[in-house]
Amino acid sequence: MAQDMTLLWGSGSPPCWRVMIALEEKNLQGYNHKLLSFEKMEHKSEEVMKMNPRGQLPAFKHKDYVLNESYAACMYLESQFKSQGNKLIPDCPAGQALMYQRMFEGLTLTQKMADVIYYNWKVPEGERHDSAVKRNREGLSAEIKLWEGYLQKGCSFLAGKTFSLADVTVYPAICYLFRFGLCEERYPKLAAYYNCLKDRPSIKATWPPTWLENPQRQDTLKDI
Amino acid sequence: MAQDMTLLWGSGSPPCWRVMIALEEKNLQGYNHKLLSFEKMEHKSEEVMKMNPRGQLPAFKHKDYVLNESYAACMYLESQFKSQGNKLIPDCPAGQALMYQRMFEGLTLTQKMADVIYYNWKVPEGERHDSAVKRNREGLSAEIKLWEGYLQKGCSFLAGKTFSLADVTVYPAICYLFRFGLCEERYPKLAAYYNCLKDRPSIKATWPPTWLENPQRQDTLKDI
Repeated sequence: MAQDMTLLWGSGSPPCWRVMIALEEKNLQGYNHKLLSFEKMEHKSEEVMKMNPRGQLPAFKHKDYVLNESYAACMYLESQFKSQGNKLIPDCPAGQALMYQRMFEGLTLTQKMADVIYYNWKVPEGERHDSAVKRNREGLSAEIKLWEGYLQKGCSFLAGKTFSLADVTVYPAICYLFRFGLCEERYPKLAAYYNCLKDRPSIKATWPPTWLENPQRQDTLKDI
Repeated sequence: MAQDMTLLWGSGSPPCWRVMIALEEKNLQGYNHKLLSFEKMEHKSEEVMKMNPRGQLPAFKHKDYVLNESYAACMYLESQFKSQGNKLIPDCPAGQALMYQRMFEGLTLTQKMADVIYYNWKVPEGERHDSAVKRNREGLSAEIKLWEGYLQKGCSFLAGKTFSLADVTVYPAICYLFRFGLCEERYPKLAAYYNCLKDRPSIKATWPPTWLENPQRQDTLKDI
């Protein structure tokens, strides 16, 4: 039982979800956690700011060690609990190289996705331009096509034959794309990957509760 | 001798510089390398695109394993050459947690720095707004203050008493800040860190050649 760990999180946030999947994969259930609301601006509350001065979720700690950056938390958990639960970093050089490469490419996918989905939230009204929206959408489309090309036919993982930190970190972003309306027919390999991993215990146990309450997809990305 | 490694790089680019520092720290000299020019758009050349379809530098590989993402390359090199050269990830949980946390916070610093320095390059003329420039500069200023607060007085490292992957990945960004005019008097701890590490062999051996040719700083960040 991971009673010496605390996670403050928001539903559907890919960075929060990454940490939760990693905790499940490493058999670290039973940690203290608190679901906060982005809508109510609870990520800017004193409770969060004390742990994460950037006012972002997740805010995560193990004992006194603060690991708010989701990639940092994932790396740390795999390293500190190496022989517990599932092994998330392959040993062989080829597999490890591919895993790290995909894991960090995932940051670009997440960024380009945010540029499109959060455009109106991030850019004040007087600064918005159709040309920027168009460029961001084209950038995201090119990025998604790369990932569609990376995947093999059938159910596989992002970096070879076993589930790894690349999946822990990138799968939440893939789910987010479909949640926001990405067309399953247009990206069949991404859709197969998305649907195949849905039933993995670590994913199922951490599926965003707000998505369970309201399974309706949005259509922001339907033409991407 | 690291003759089974190839690096295509650009002078002054923090992602390229990270990989070069990591290679030096792990005693992996003698790798094949080629300096390319961003100004001449050589990062979009066929040679680069074949290794890195995003058309970005660095493009790096070890044997057939492609590791274009600088953080991926650093993690891989430390993992595969663990007992060679300097150890870059602390073993103790507290040190390791701090190292990963700072290392990944470095991505936010790099992003906020790019938002300011590359604004005119990234944003087409008709989409530029003084209000956006002001917001980006305020964001970078708040971010730099966090890092000034993280450092201790005197010469120290970003995550404790030894040089680590946090320094490998974040030091190039700190150098970039000063190269673009950050005021040393206003950020004395960052300036001490910057000046102290300049003479470290791995840093000295990889200092951007274009900065050596033209040591004149720019003044983009002088009022930050």
